[in-house]
Amino acid sequence: MTRRPTGWRWALRPLAGEAITEADFIQVAAPPAELGPGQVLIETQWLSLDPYLSFGMRGRAAIGDAWAEGHVHGRVIGKVTASRAPNVAAGDVVLGIGHWQAEQVLEAGSLRRLDSDGAPPTTELGVLGVPGLTAWVGLQLGKAAQGETVVVSAVAGPVGSVAAQVARELGCRVIGIAGGAEKNRYALKALRVHACLDHREPDLAGRLARAAPGGVDLVFENVGAPTLDATLPSLNNAARVMLCGLAAHYNDAAPVQLANFRLLLRRHVMMRGFATHEHPDLHQGGRARLERWLQSGDLVYRETISQGLETAPAAFLRMLRGEGLGKHLVCLSEPD
Amino acid sequence: MTRRPTGWRWALRPLAGEAITEADFIQVAAPPAELGPGQVLIETQWLSLDPYLSFGMRGRAAIGDAWAEGHVHGRVIGKVTASRAPNVAAGDVVLGIGHWQAEQVLEAGSLRRLDSDGAPPTTELGVLGVPGLTAWVGLQLGKAAQGETVVVSAVAGPVGSVAAQVARELGCRVIGIAGGAEKNRYALKALRVHACLDHREPDLAGRLARAAPGGVDLVFENVGAPTLDATLPSLNNAARVMLCGLAAHYNDAAPVQLANFRLLLRRHVMMRGFATHEHPDLHQGGRARLERWLQSGDLVYRETISQGLETAPAAFLRMLRGEGLGKHLVCLSEPD
Repeated sequence: MTRRPTGWRWALRPLAGEAITEADFIQVAAPPAELGPGQVLIETQWLSLDPYLSFGMRGRAAIGDAWAEGHVHGRVIGKVTASRAPNVAAGDVVLGIGHWQAEQVLEAGSLRRLDSDGAPPTTELGVLGVPGLTAWVGLQLGKAAQGETVVVSAVAGPVGSVAAQVARELGCRVIGIAGGAEKNRYALKALRVHACLDHREPDLAGRLARAAPGGVDLVFENVGAPTLDATLPSLNNAARVMLCGLAAHYNDAAPVQLANFRLLLRRHVMMRGFATHEHPDLHQGGRARLERWLQSGDLVYRETISQGLETAPAAFLRMLRGEGLGKHLVCLSEPD
Repeated sequence: MTRRPTGWRWALRPLAGEAITEADFIQVAAPPAELGPGQVLIETQWLSLDPYLSFGMRGRAAIGDAWAEGHVHGRVIGKVTASRAPNVAAGDVVLGIGHWQAEQVLEAGSLRRLDSDGAPPTTELGVLGVPGLTAWVGLQLGKAAQGETVVVSAVAGPVGSVAAQVARELGCRVIGIAGGAEKNRYALKALRVHACLDHREPDLAGRLARAAPGGVDLVFENVGAPTLDATLPSLNNAARVMLCGLAAHYNDAAPVQLANFRLLLRRHVMMRGFATHEHPDLHQGGRARLERWLQSGDLVYRETISQGLETAPAAFLRMLRGEGLGKHLVCLSEPD
């Protein structure tokens, strides 16, 4: 199998309030690989497409970050083709943070080797990876309790789909929110939520109030104003809103408008933004629970896969627009 | 001393998104007093003007509430002129929830008798009353800690002025926000905040960033979007925003717009609306601390007093507009 040594660079256009477009990605020939001590060469197999990448694109990543050097930069899975590191060998499959390149040099110390006999490697980017753990951490920090009513927005996405199923397993009544008939069907049939609401239909707030006659105790928010504003009127006193994502607000810089913001005060709501990596104490237990539910079949997942490195920018933008189910990935391996 | 038996009724106009105006208050002759068992007749001495009264005016109070019957309804202090209750005698000064009336019948069981030898009775509506306790409870729930930087908006108001002084006594660096030169001077000189910023001057966000070079750990928010949006860019990771009031958003129903809302997620902020009455465990200790600081002179307060029942609607609207310092009161006693 031969591979073209291509990659994507980031245009470094000052985006200000503008939307990210395909024109912001520039296809380049990646530089020849120079392997130093402690480094490995990988043939990239999978790119993980995640909403948070847009932070880097908007220049909001840390100073000195690869984004600032024009790299498109996120989680990747690859097969090691050469190694100058003691603990990694050619043939190993590894997960790390890398560039959108077909071939790349990575520091072995930053990589995690994936078991060949475990769940499929892409589950490490989805249901068992950061998205799955994020669902777990958010529900733990939000103190999801048996008998409570939990709303999960973007319920067909990689985080929402796990949050909905975990909340259901914890004994909560789960109301999903998703856009379009396909996602709503998926949530009801596969994720087995108690109700699912299409945010593209009119009067989301009214339909949610009818679906949650006892009020809502916990919101797992992945979207932002369009779903949150409709949820606020149904919140019970002292409800919790876990801010996990704001997908509706990543692709522009317009102010966030909430007609029902006053209810955060009047209902004594706790709204909390969180990051999975800041709660390492919850990771091991969460991973164990997720693995168990995955093995027992109580936890299911879907992937939306785009074939070929050249499709990555368009696939990323489709993910930002909320098209497709579950975890979005780019597959760089040629079909068998 | 003779008193005209007048009162104010609430017009019951459906307000929807419109502002409250003086025309919404109707001066009436209060009905003749009929004293039943367990009741007392009071000559009203003070009306407490509080932003939360606008909830009642907008029909958002509980069903069956006095507002729905057309009463203007809030905290009052009065002198008992007749009593059919065993534990209250003519001449007692009492605090309770009552109408905007010169004379009224109240249930004795709902009243608190005020000591004649303690702090002035109006402190029970301000620095030692719900506003002062609210400041204490908010700082406790927000875990204000020594060495932290705390921002207090509406710092010249009855809650903000106590929150700023208590935070200062707890060892925090306090940055106040207030509108106009008089309030800023008051905050610096009398409340002894470390810095105070006038929100009417341009670039509040930039000035706040310069005043808090180490970032902001805790926000005691009394205003809403105009001050909160400017504060969000200065928040440290895992900062807390205690939502105590949204004065900027009480007099209309326009959506709340926050250009920097995304930072609640990115900085992992906990924002929490709270109500003082839901945390009774904090009241006794808080009251004791406030009394001690008041006696030692570490806690100071101001009152903005409007003379005469007929001035109540205009005074209420001045309070909503943020005019004046400290606690807003209407005095019904004729000057000596």
